[in-house]
Amino acid sequence: MVMRSLTPDQTRFLDAARVGALATADGDGHPHVVPVVFVLDDGRIYTPIDGKPKGDPRGLRRLRNIRENPRVSLLVSRYEEDWTRLGFVLIRGTAMILEGGSADGRPAEEEAECRSAEALLREKYSQYETVPLGGPDSLFIRITLERATSWGMI
Amino acid sequence: MVMRSLTPDQTRFLDAARVGALATADGDGHPHVVPVVFVLDDGRIYTPIDGKPKGDPRGLRRLRNIRENPRVSLLVSRYEEDWTRLGFVLIRGTAMILEGGSADGRPAEEEAECRSAEALLREKYSQYETVPLGGPDSLFIRITLERATSWGMI
Repeated sequence: MVMRSLTPDQTRFLDAARVGALATADGDGHPHVVPVVFVLDDGRIYTPIDGKPKGDPRGLRRLRNIRENPRVSLLVSRYEEDWTRLGFVLIRGTAMILEGGSADGRPAEEEAECRSAEALLREKYSQYETVPLGGPDSLFIRITLERATSWGMI
Repeated sequence: MVMRSLTPDQTRFLDAARVGALATADGDGHPHVVPVVFVLDDGRIYTPIDGKPKGDPRGLRRLRNIRENPRVSLLVSRYEEDWTRLGFVLIRGTAMILEGGSADGRPAEEEAECRSAEALLREKYSQYETVPLGGPDSLFIRITLERATSWGMI
């Protein structure tokens, strides 16, 4: 099923999922894919650059790729040994990097959006009671949904 | 850790994993990502276009993308609620589509390679006792490893 917005089943599946695979590609079309935590909010998906150790966050390949090429895909899938129960939702969309901190000249709207994403992430993932999230250097990736495809049992 | 070949830990992690996320990109650099089963064999990774229902297999986006752009990434990751136990292996490589059946003019080597991939897949996934795999119309994707990166606890 291919949709430009999410069905109730797709929304439920994404809300319940704990992890996805975010695919980006650089300007030369080399694909890259990393596991991400995420939240869904009104047709947009937010994934943080959080405090899990990963070196200099601003140099992350996913961010370099999004700056070069904002098209992304996010896969959220369920694997079970009973293959009649496999299922996934695949989101295609456009990504934008949001600065969570007090970047000069950043619109107040963007700051509010980051705070809202942070609150939703804290609500979904209790791990953020101890893992750093938000703060002056924080970054979020916002994915604006363009198409959702689902397959199998979701 | 970035390597041009797999470490023993990476090999063990990939051998034990049941599913990965295969990222491809089309000629315009639009990324795509799908869940795949796979086997590792001597620095190469094989993933089948098998009998799980998915419409016309030859029209699959992953195959169209690989024909346009053979660069791929394969993510194999473990998610746990204890985030100190997260881990993944990311493979970057070049993909080639192998025809498992009796395509005209196909080298005998390719046929033997498909048979070997099929045997390894049947050994790893008992689901192929009932799900179709191989046969005259079968296709396999071979990924030749160029770089492996791992992160966290693998």
